[in-house]
Amino acid sequence: MRTRIVVDPSSSFGVREALASLPDVDAVYATDERAVARALEEIPVLVTKLWHDEYLRPGLRWVQTGSAGYERFPIEELRRRGIVLCGGRGLHAVVAEHAIALLLAAMRDIHVSVRRMADRRWEPHVGQELAGRTAVVAGLGTIGEGIARRLGGWDVRLVGVTRTPTSYRGILSDVRPLAELAAACAEASVLFVALPQAPETRGLVSAAVLDALGRGYVVNVARGPLVDEAALVERLTDGRLAGAGLDVVESEPLASSSPLWTLPNVVLTPHMGGSSPRYAGRFAELLSENLRAFHGLGPWRDRIC
Amino acid sequence: MRTRIVVDPSSSFGVREALASLPDVDAVYATDERAVARALEEIPVLVTKLWHDEYLRPGLRWVQTGSAGYERFPIEELRRRGIVLCGGRGLHAVVAEHAIALLLAAMRDIHVSVRRMADRRWEPHVGQELAGRTAVVAGLGTIGEGIARRLGGWDVRLVGVTRTPTSYRGILSDVRPLAELAAACAEASVLFVALPQAPETRGLVSAAVLDALGRGYVVNVARGPLVDEAALVERLTDGRLAGAGLDVVESEPLASSSPLWTLPNVVLTPHMGGSSPRYAGRFAELLSENLRAFHGLGPWRDRIC
Repeated sequence: MRTRIVVDPSSSFGVREALASLPDVDAVYATDERAVARALEEIPVLVTKLWHDEYLRPGLRWVQTGSAGYERFPIEELRRRGIVLCGGRGLHAVVAEHAIALLLAAMRDIHVSVRRMADRRWEPHVGQELAGRTAVVAGLGTIGEGIARRLGGWDVRLVGVTRTPTSYRGILSDVRPLAELAAACAEASVLFVALPQAPETRGLVSAAVLDALGRGYVVNVARGPLVDEAALVERLTDGRLAGAGLDVVESEPLASSSPLWTLPNVVLTPHMGGSSPRYAGRFAELLSENLRAFHGLGPWRDRIC
Repeated sequence: MRTRIVVDPSSSFGVREALASLPDVDAVYATDERAVARALEEIPVLVTKLWHDEYLRPGLRWVQTGSAGYERFPIEELRRRGIVLCGGRGLHAVVAEHAIALLLAAMRDIHVSVRRMADRRWEPHVGQELAGRTAVVAGLGTIGEGIARRLGGWDVRLVGVTRTPTSYRGILSDVRPLAELAAACAEASVLFVALPQAPETRGLVSAAVLDALGRGYVVNVARGPLVDEAALVERLTDGRLAGAGLDVVESEPLASSSPLWTLPNVVLTPHMGGSSPRYAGRFAELLSENLRAFHGLGPWRDRIC
């Protein structure tokens, strides 16, 4: 049974590679939003990273995103119309590696050394040490739990913060609600931000939270708007914060006027935390499962609504 | 009981800070090798990172180094003269953090992003993934064992290689002798070099070992001469190797003519893997213990001969 699928132009190369590998799929690559909307007049399936309201065509039945976050999708509206939305949570375990890469780079001054390579300068400097610290992991989904699991052997005390501490079933023993984020940071010198973007997480890493953290490190691999960027920049500039590793910023791509480009204690990567050469294979597997579900032959994977 | 100690000018800032914190020590800071030798005519204790043969004065009784490696010291000669040499192995656990920082930076393209920061370029690229790989940890002292322990939760298969597999008592279950390094690398795509420099380890990471590793990553936090640098550069240049993270090179400081400065798949740090703000406190503790031993009041710590 062949399935036609409309592909939004925002889809990554990995998504296209995944679709190309599936024998029973005819992918229609639309070149802009209007072409997507037009194709959805006839085709009931959409693969997309972004959402535009003109995609809400009467015949739409299933939207598949490869994104770990789905704050841009109109979940209530989709639910009302009986349109299935599926996410890509499990695809993004590699973000945990990226988060720790960012932290270690900032702490061990890898960025300083890389800049000195350009000048052929061999100048030993003193790096910071992770062992013995307390780290707060805010968000305990695939990514946050993955960070916690990876830091098991590092002599780091871990405190988890989640919206739903009572239903938490992971490896951490010290898990607290969102309201206690600042108090947790007051005990720590590392903060990993790995929460989904939602009304209750927007701006959650506020000036007060950063002040509680003190001379520590902030790593954000979730979404820029979770952190008060002005407060972050201010504290990185005057040294109240020791450093930051950021894979996401408030508005992407980052404006060329942003001070984040030049702050010496910032390591910045361009929202690539989830990238991996293995992404295409994993997305193909997810799509295959959900194609079966679409045809009534099995359960949906990572269904959001 | 006060003790006078001669301090070689090669000693790091951390060593000086440690000595300053010890109440019963009078440290004599010699400004060059000849001043060290002269001071040793009267003072029986030397703290030094490097060794020069004129330090072998008749009154010398104890040499303390803060270095993890002590290949430069004339151990047989010292032993013959009854001079105690003590090392600083336990001081260097942070090198394991640095090793993983280097690997993750090379794999997640942190160096590429840092370079693009200078041009304010936000260009997502695809990073590599550590999960699912096999890594060889060559050398299972404080540093190698620390690397293995830290990679416990990363979904990495670990193979240890050591000079003394039969007496190994660490956490790894798959541990092989030096002679099997190339065979181990043939199963892996990551190689950590954490062996001491010794006649049997010099040049150990040969062209053949690198070829066995294939399109993988080499991290060296031990000593430059353990790796055939010409073979390494050749394979990084033509892409037979995927990348390298190097805290040490054959000859330090690295010559400005070296291709390692500009290879796009190399992350280079200037022999700072052992640096930490906590170094001074740890060295002070080590010195205190060995001062007691020097006065016959306790056992030596990390005595080499």
